[in-house]
Amino acid sequence: MEWIDVRSDTVTQPTPAMRTAMADAAVGDDVYGDDPTVVALEAAAAERLGKAAALFVPTGTFGNQLALFTHCERGDEVIVAEDSHIVWHEVGGAAIIAGVNLRPVPVLNGDAVRTRIRPAGDIHLPRTGLVCVENARGAGSVMPLATMREIRDVARAAGIPVHLDGARLFNAATALGVEASELAQYADTVMFCLSKGLAAPVGSILAGPSGFIERARKKRKLMGGGLRQAGVLAAPGLIALDEMSARLGDDHVNAKRLAELLERLPGVVVHRDQLDINMVFFELLDIHQNPDDLVAKLLAQGIKANPPEAGLWRFVTHWQVGAAEVERIASAFGQALLR
Amino acid sequence: MEWIDVRSDTVTQPTPAMRTAMADAAVGDDVYGDDPTVVALEAAAAERLGKAAALFVPTGTFGNQLALFTHCERGDEVIVAEDSHIVWHEVGGAAIIAGVNLRPVPVLNGDAVRTRIRPAGDIHLPRTGLVCVENARGAGSVMPLATMREIRDVARAAGIPVHLDGARLFNAATALGVEASELAQYADTVMFCLSKGLAAPVGSILAGPSGFIERARKKRKLMGGGLRQAGVLAAPGLIALDEMSARLGDDHVNAKRLAELLERLPGVVVHRDQLDINMVFFELLDIHQNPDDLVAKLLAQGIKANPPEAGLWRFVTHWQVGAAEVERIASAFGQALLR
Amino acid sequence: MEWIDVRSDTVTQPTPAMRTAMADAAVGDDVYGDDPTVVALEAAAAERLGKAAALFVPTGTFGNQLALFTHCERGDEVIVAEDSHIVWHEVGGAAIIAGVNLRPVPVLNGDAVRTRIRPAGDIHLPRTGLVCVENARGAGSVMPLATMREIRDVARAAGIPVHLDGARLFNAATALGVEASELAQYADTVMFCLSKGLAAPVGSILAGPSGFIERARKKRKLMGGGLRQAGVLAAPGLIALDEMSARLGDDHVNAKRLAELLERLPGVVVHRDQLDINMVFFELLDIHQNPDDLVAKLLAQGIKANPPEAGLWRFVTHWQVGAAEVERIASAFGQALLR
Amino acid sequence: MEWIDVRSDTVTQPTPAMRTAMADAAVGDDVYGDDPTVVALEAAAAERLGKAAALFVPTGTFGNQLALFTHCERGDEVIVAEDSHIVWHEVGGAAIIAGVNLRPVPVLNGDAVRTRIRPAGDIHLPRTGLVCVENARGAGSVMPLATMREIRDVARAAGIPVHLDGARLFNAATALGVEASELAQYADTVMFCLSKGLAAPVGSILAGPSGFIERARKKRKLMGGGLRQAGVLAAPGLIALDEMSARLGDDHVNAKRLAELLERLPGVVVHRDQLDINMVFFELLDIHQNPDDLVAKLLAQGIKANPPEAGLWRFVTHWQVGAAEVERIASAFGQALLR
Repeated sequence: MEWIDVRSDTVTQPTPAMRTAMADAAVGDDVYGDDPTVVALEAAAAERLGKAAALFVPTGTFGNQLALFTHCERGDEVIVAEDSHIVWHEVGGAAIIAGVNLRPVPVLNGDAVRTRIRPAGDIHLPRTGLVCVENARGAGSVMPLATMREIRDVARAAGIPVHLDGARLFNAATALGVEASELAQYADTVMFCLSKGLAAPVGSILAGPSGFIERARKKRKLMGGGLRQAGVLAAPGLIALDEMSARLGDDHVNAKRLAELLERLPGVVVHRDQLDINMVFFELLDIHQNPDDLVAKLLAQGIKANPPEAGLWRFVTHWQVGAAEVERIASAFGQALLR
Repeated sequence: MEWIDVRSDTVTQPTPAMRTAMADAAVGDDVYGDDPTVVALEAAAAERLGKAAALFVPTGTFGNQLALFTHCERGDEVIVAEDSHIVWHEVGGAAIIAGVNLRPVPVLNGDAVRTRIRPAGDIHLPRTGLVCVENARGAGSVMPLATMREIRDVARAAGIPVHLDGARLFNAATALGVEASELAQYADTVMFCLSKGLAAPVGSILAGPSGFIERARKKRKLMGGGLRQAGVLAAPGLIALDEMSARLGDDHVNAKRLAELLERLPGVVVHRDQLDINMVFFELLDIHQNPDDLVAKLLAQGIKANPPEAGLWRFVTHWQVGAAEVERIASAFGQALLR
Repeated sequence: MEWIDVRSDTVTQPTPAMRTAMADAAVGDDVYGDDPTVVALEAAAAERLGKAAALFVPTGTFGNQLALFTHCERGDEVIVAEDSHIVWHEVGGAAIIAGVNLRPVPVLNGDAVRTRIRPAGDIHLPRTGLVCVENARGAGSVMPLATMREIRDVARAAGIPVHLDGARLFNAATALGVEASELAQYADTVMFCLSKGLAAPVGSILAGPSGFIERARKKRKLMGGGLRQAGVLAAPGLIALDEMSARLGDDHVNAKRLAELLERLPGVVVHRDQLDINMVFFELLDIHQNPDDLVAKLLAQGIKANPPEAGLWRFVTHWQVGAAEVERIASAFGQALLR
Repeated sequence: MEWIDVRSDTVTQPTPAMRTAMADAAVGDDVYGDDPTVVALEAAAAERLGKAAALFVPTGTFGNQLALFTHCERGDEVIVAEDSHIVWHEVGGAAIIAGVNLRPVPVLNGDAVRTRIRPAGDIHLPRTGLVCVENARGAGSVMPLATMREIRDVARAAGIPVHLDGARLFNAATALGVEASELAQYADTVMFCLSKGLAAPVGSILAGPSGFIERARKKRKLMGGGLRQAGVLAAPGLIALDEMSARLGDDHVNAKRLAELLERLPGVVVHRDQLDINMVFFELLDIHQNPDDLVAKLLAQGIKANPPEAGLWRFVTHWQVGAAEVERIASAFGQALLR
């Protein structure tokens, strides 16, 4: 049975071209710097983002935690949105690996940063070590370039670096209609995922200044991320970066189409303010609908979906959920709602 | 010259009775449990708070950090008000000593806690390990008992302990017109300072269940707080607890009187919502007044005051700032304002 | 040019069968537990070691650090040989990720462990949290089963778990002529590498009791090791485990043959006590030989070798360094020595 | 009853002069830098050791941990004798507060340090961040100046600082017949205790370069050691430093006299190589003697002694154990041995 999986874009299977690339990849021991495919991927990623250097890391969480660890001194404070991945979905790693204090703020913008930067010279205060921005946000919306610039300006004026959690950076760039480098310019360092919508099986990139990446390379080893023949992952990563990043607009169109179809169903309310990328967030007016039953009915129709979190459903499109699948999902969900 | 010092109540000098008590104290090596005065103080403090056991610690920051360290597993999340001492004035120690993630919230109450407690079983989420309440708050206001009970109820329902940062616990109790134990009942553990308004030269208390205090005793040693003949500090601490805690109402009356006098001065706006204890917060309407000049003029009159933080002045009363001193301060400040 | 690479067995390229397996692998999102190839590898590895459960991790360092992190409470002391990988080659991660104190001992055996286990109940002492054994040792020798059993018995009597760093576990088993599970029985948890002599491009296994592995799975996520379609790495991993582990005897024979050939060269002294597995350690009597020149001369003959560390050379055999290559290496080294 | 307490010199009571000094001390809020007695003590201590600056800390453990924390980056390796206080009696704090890896060595000297300093530039290796020397050693012996110089020279050549744990620094200086500053010159930073043989009730000093002490002052606050009216402790500390340090020779003479007397008892073997300072280590040939019985019999005679550790007894002299007390102890122990 061919599943339709809308739980996340993390479920994307590698494309046939990626499978061939893995099998054919030129590889070497990357701890010795000998893997030509990794070297090629890191160079291509750095260039794409307009950064001096880049580093292949196993996951997005690894890349974010490595960024905190490399930017900050232990005990530093990190200003970050309260709804961000670093606060929510990285298992509290910030206090362990980097040993930093998160300072979550309800809404992240220039003012929020300005009022939280610590003045120097007071014996009671920690140092503000970093500002973390997330774009696209996990909640499906995109931060405007103006907000990114404003945050960068405030941080820079205070001598504080900015890290961009760009797990879905190319989704954000696509939604904003700009090159990824236009977002990346407002951050000192950027993490983006080759998996998720870009469909590589494993891997993310951390990019930034050369000295930073050099220090991060040693800390990557400490964290257990010094892979050996990583070229087998870098090869599909190159396809993700070069080819798959160009087709994310399709996913966004499909998400919007899915949103329209779902809105036609009785009692479905789509969160239109979270519809910037490849995610459709919606809730059901009928509180007597049992979410687990709905999930089971979808599964019986070959559709894998997550139950809602705090009443909020999320369906995610990707290269294996195209226009035809979108119709099938909406139709199946409509039938499931008929109890 | 006899100074009037309104910078803080941390500047309080020990009373003559405390000096005598220090000189006469029966002491022993407290690491061996041999110091009778420390034993007596810990017993008295535990009884006063209605807790099973208590531990003498060098400072309030030490007591709070020790509480985080003893309650939490590393990587846990701690829900705490964003304007609290733990977030603001403990140098970011939470990420270092306890190794926990602070989760600062704008306004701390039952709902704020409820919406931030992490559900169990999700591989992405840290564990919520503790809720920290501060009463009296450093900003000079007191949290109502109902809010404390509400927070305690929400936390308890989720199996999460509550720690009370009661650096000025007896000020809060005085302001609320209750025994300190009535506040302490809404927390599993309580820290309060023997210094500050209670005027002991050095020391704070961490109180809680016996097992907790036993574990905290070992971690106190690890943190370098296993003092030897600590009875010389416990002796004035007993006077602080027994006698000085009964006279804090005077400081509050004096603070309110000082507020009244300052309000009569042109352009002085007292923050009446921060006038619950021994602190007067106010701002000046005339933005051309140079704060450093004002501080210097006060100093010339024998009055030590801190410059304002973000435009907000704070004058603090204590046993060495009585009714007469309050008149002198208001008068001197009035003169200083006349440029 | 076809290189002969004796710098390490970490340089091994995946076999053609592995490349095919990668391209054909059935994959899913392993964070959801959906990757059938990872599930199959973890089951096969657990069974092979006689453990209840196993976890795929990106590297051997990751697996060792995750073991420390999962076994220990922060601040625990870990007894470990001073020449072990954890002390030498993991960038000091023990104090960072697990937050433990290493207690390196010159020679690790039952007595060394017994005299270093901390008694309970003393307020000054850390807790002994773990004993780490390494087999095969990085220095090329194998720890006898009797020593492993002795250490396990001492540790178990004190209620302390044992972790086995088996980066080259199957080399040790081959050298001792036993199944890997016979070594694994003397440890609560075991890490072994699918890369190195087993030739998989990326990946290691951490195996142990089910509850331990469940906790480790969450901490793996925290450390950034929750890969998505990891089946592309598990597929060659299964070949490494099933097929490549059976051929390590060849590497050992080739290493001994290489040792014999090198010993015939003038001034070459092989360390015969470090010749248990696929490594040849030797030194040169002629201290006027320039190591960098020798390395350059070998490179000119198509042979990649590392310079000596503290005067000690190490050549490593693996599936790409067979009987013919061994002859070529010895011959080239002989020529290089003729200045 | 007037006890004779030979368990440790940590049990020393403050002298009458110290009690008077406490009561009369000029004090202020030391967090504001306002305590004149603390300022005077820090200046006197720095001058005495030939260092630029000094800092009052609550305990010796606090001072050592603060030194590790201020000297090192997290994850650094610290070379230290395996039998030192930092390894044995500081509850494993090194991995928690400073977050460093201890590298304990069996015998600490220049060679031991030289062979353990990590070369730069290898991605696998932690950085060597500090060498810790202890003098006098807790085991009662003194490290020769030549060894200290040798260690300092090796460390300095590698650009690595040296910290001296001088909990009993003045005992070491007395035993070696030199000024404390002659020992201190071989270390970048020095911790010594005002308690122990110097008899102050509470407190230690950390001394070193001005920049180091400035950074340590902030980290002292983070660790909860920013005391307020600490002058009440600094006042007896000044007497400890100025007067009590001059009389330690008496304690050493008394220890040697006690050793002689004990040696005359049947079956008592004194460890003469651990008799450099104010401690007498001995064992009993008769293994049927019950240590707890002996301790109880001494207690009945008004003498407090610790039971032996691993068969080794330790009696410690100090200002409250003089020539007369030594006779009484030996006599009482002789009687206790007669079963």
